[in-house]
Amino acid sequence: MNNYRGCQGLNKNPSESMHEHYEIKIDSPDEPNRARIIAFSVWGILRGMESFGHLIYYKADQTNSNVGVYLVNSTQVMDFPRFTHRGVMLDSSRHFLSKSVIIANLDLMEMNKMNVFHWHLTDDQSFPYESKSFPQLSKKGSYNPNTHVYHQQDIKEILEAARIRGIRVVPEFDTPGHTRSWENGHPGLLTKCFDGVLGPVNPILNSTYAFMKKFFHEVMTVFPDELLHLGGDEVNTNCWKNNTEIVAFMKENNITDAKLLEAYYLAKIFNIVESYKPSKKSYAVWQEAYQNGQGQLSKNAIVHVWKGEDWQNVTQKATGDGMKVLLSAPWYLNYISYGIDWHNYYKIDPQNFGGNDKQRRLVFGGEACMWGEFVNSINLIPRLWPRASAVAERLWSSADVTDVNKAAPRLQEHECRMLKRGYRVEPSNGPGYCDIDWN
Amino acid sequence: MNNYRGCQGLNKNPSESMHEHYEIKIDSPDEPNRARIIAFSVWGILRGMESFGHLIYYKADQTNSNVGVYLVNSTQVMDFPRFTHRGVMLDSSRHFLSKSVIIANLDLMEMNKMNVFHWHLTDDQSFPYESKSFPQLSKKGSYNPNTHVYHQQDIKEILEAARIRGIRVVPEFDTPGHTRSWENGHPGLLTKCFDGVLGPVNPILNSTYAFMKKFFHEVMTVFPDELLHLGGDEVNTNCWKNNTEIVAFMKENNITDAKLLEAYYLAKIFNIVESYKPSKKSYAVWQEAYQNGQGQLSKNAIVHVWKGEDWQNVTQKATGDGMKVLLSAPWYLNYISYGIDWHNYYKIDPQNFGGNDKQRRLVFGGEACMWGEFVNSINLIPRLWPRASAVAERLWSSADVTDVNKAAPRLQEHECRMLKRGYRVEPSNGPGYCDIDWN
Repeated sequence: MNNYRGCQGLNKNPSESMHEHYEIKIDSPDEPNRARIIAFSVWGILRGMESFGHLIYYKADQTNSNVGVYLVNSTQVMDFPRFTHRGVMLDSSRHFLSKSVIIANLDLMEMNKMNVFHWHLTDDQSFPYESKSFPQLSKKGSYNPNTHVYHQQDIKEILEAARIRGIRVVPEFDTPGHTRSWENGHPGLLTKCFDGVLGPVNPILNSTYAFMKKFFHEVMTVFPDELLHLGGDEVNTNCWKNNTEIVAFMKENNITDAKLLEAYYLAKIFNIVESYKPSKKSYAVWQEAYQNGQGQLSKNAIVHVWKGEDWQNVTQKATGDGMKVLLSAPWYLNYISYGIDWHNYYKIDPQNFGGNDKQRRLVFGGEACMWGEFVNSINLIPRLWPRASAVAERLWSSADVTDVNKAAPRLQEHECRMLKRGYRVEPSNGPGYCDIDWN
Repeated sequence: MNNYRGCQGLNKNPSESMHEHYEIKIDSPDEPNRARIIAFSVWGILRGMESFGHLIYYKADQTNSNVGVYLVNSTQVMDFPRFTHRGVMLDSSRHFLSKSVIIANLDLMEMNKMNVFHWHLTDDQSFPYESKSFPQLSKKGSYNPNTHVYHQQDIKEILEAARIRGIRVVPEFDTPGHTRSWENGHPGLLTKCFDGVLGPVNPILNSTYAFMKKFFHEVMTVFPDELLHLGGDEVNTNCWKNNTEIVAFMKENNITDAKLLEAYYLAKIFNIVESYKPSKKSYAVWQEAYQNGQGQLSKNAIVHVWKGEDWQNVTQKATGDGMKVLLSAPWYLNYISYGIDWHNYYKIDPQNFGGNDKQRRLVFGGEACMWGEFVNSINLIPRLWPRASAVAERLWSSADVTDVNKAAPRLQEHECRMLKRGYRVEPSNGPGYCDIDWN
């Protein structure tokens, strides 16, 4: 193994700008009897090593089928990803996911050349992140503070496991909605709705922003990646609209619509992120943050499109406004159905939404999402793989690689490969078998 | 632990007539400070021991939450099953299921008081049963004769594992359809259809019945249970109808409809089963065997109703004809969908089909079916459990135990219990957690 211009990245974190291009030359005309993987960076070498593994095949002896050899053919490969951001989103709030399962999933992501682990850490149901600044958040907000928490040491291990696989970790702390569990350890954070139940984060209190500044600055210190996911989806703006103090605040501040209060809140959170030193951070939000913003949302925010029904329209509109877009809408893999479903994921083209070239370039990647309502450490891996492999190929391969019938045997082979390496991936193509297909 | 009238069954096989009634008396008024499980047979003791395990709960010390005790309350339980036959069907032909996974599934069946493992051993796709009389069947018809075969020794181990858990093993060798893999090791068995492809077993050849007699007599020797499943579903009678030799045979024998040829074929198979010495055997067939028979199917056959859309009509008609019925139609657990689906399984009443009392009594049980198109050793357990627990409770408990809201916390507790015992069952009730919920 070798590289082209010295090995960039060995001690660095993978980033949005990392080079994943690689070449494989095995017994090429200009270098007979030699095998090389060539890349601009260690990340390209990693991708090339994975592909090299796929080139190896077994050949049984013609006279004695009990023996055989592993072979690689003479070949030349030049390969690079179509999209920069190729992710898997896991939800560790609806159900807790064990560290070992998260790391097994990083293995599988690497085998599928995916490079972003979007970690939806907290939600209404539980707060499993151990905050150094606010330890009560997980002590009171997790399912069990002894067993269902990611301690700082666990996070370090996961970050390092991801780094050496060339995978970025983008944490999501979803606010102002989806925050019910935060209130347990930080009382007074949420809005009391008209009917007495708790709603979104209270956006009119200075204490909210003092807390958020300290919290997010910690998060940015813990998670080195430049990208932070700030959530912003499914905010119950009715709760705000029917709270007299909030209505008064809106009047005072000339905020004409409770939906615009989300943009107001997020602008303050964006300022908090932008004020972080030493490193520059970028941020993504779910599509409602953009839609509720009615043009007022910062152009720096990345719009994460997740609603299945109209992803093309929303993507066209957001990119038309000059926003960068991440696509997940067609890739909600938590939705299961009987039979072969990966065809649907494979057939999506993230740039097929009727925009112009400039707009299409603003779509810089996508993510397969696995929400956790019905998924825990037991069924995460078999439910996600190899279905997510279809998304991985779509995000890596050239736009003209679209033939499902040609992809099917590749996927089948890859399914057996993942199984053989010890991962509990499930059958995706109907009846059949792998050489090794049991536990 | 004790039993009522001496311990029947220790060396015997579980059977349709086994007694599963039991009583648990813990610190009862007539026997204070004493705990007993009382049953008519060892099978009842097994069921009682499972229930006894469910009565144990943990109580943490009030002053020190790190220590605690396991407790059982004073109680009296008198319990018995509503239905005799409470089964799980597994398909080891579309995908091979490992012996260890089959045995793990027997553990889970026992934990759910299910008592019949219906083993759909063979199908079009593969023939994994090692026949002593016809070893070519698995040598040529399995996915891999070295690794994807149940050898006689494996079957012995599975039978013994089932027996000691009070579970009967009902093998299914589905004919005359679903037999494509048989032809590989026994050429000439199948009908050549008009278009050259292979159809169902050829029903007009003496060689067919000579083969079947030897084969099924072996099967009855290997599998001790009194019940045998003979299949009979989805027979391509068009293939027969368009084969000139078969048409001539039908004319000769005054068989007016190719569908009736299935009844003709099955009558001969039934004769083979009935001719088996020393023990009496009974047999079940899928519903088409009854429907295609147009009144000509033997009244001794048990009708296994599996078609979802009209199970009530078919059950009413079959029981009206005096046939015994097994129900699986509402319990095809291989069909998956997003969200909570066990409510649908739970709400079914197998005797709610508009028949009279006599007809209702002919429905003597049911089975949760897990067909193998998308299920192998990796995902069988999480896909089946705890969804099959809803079927298990329906088949065991009294007809008036129907409240889904009361069942939900019971199921949740049982899900965590199965998990704690080391089985990979998946979350069935939405967000939440178990004390131990990871791999």
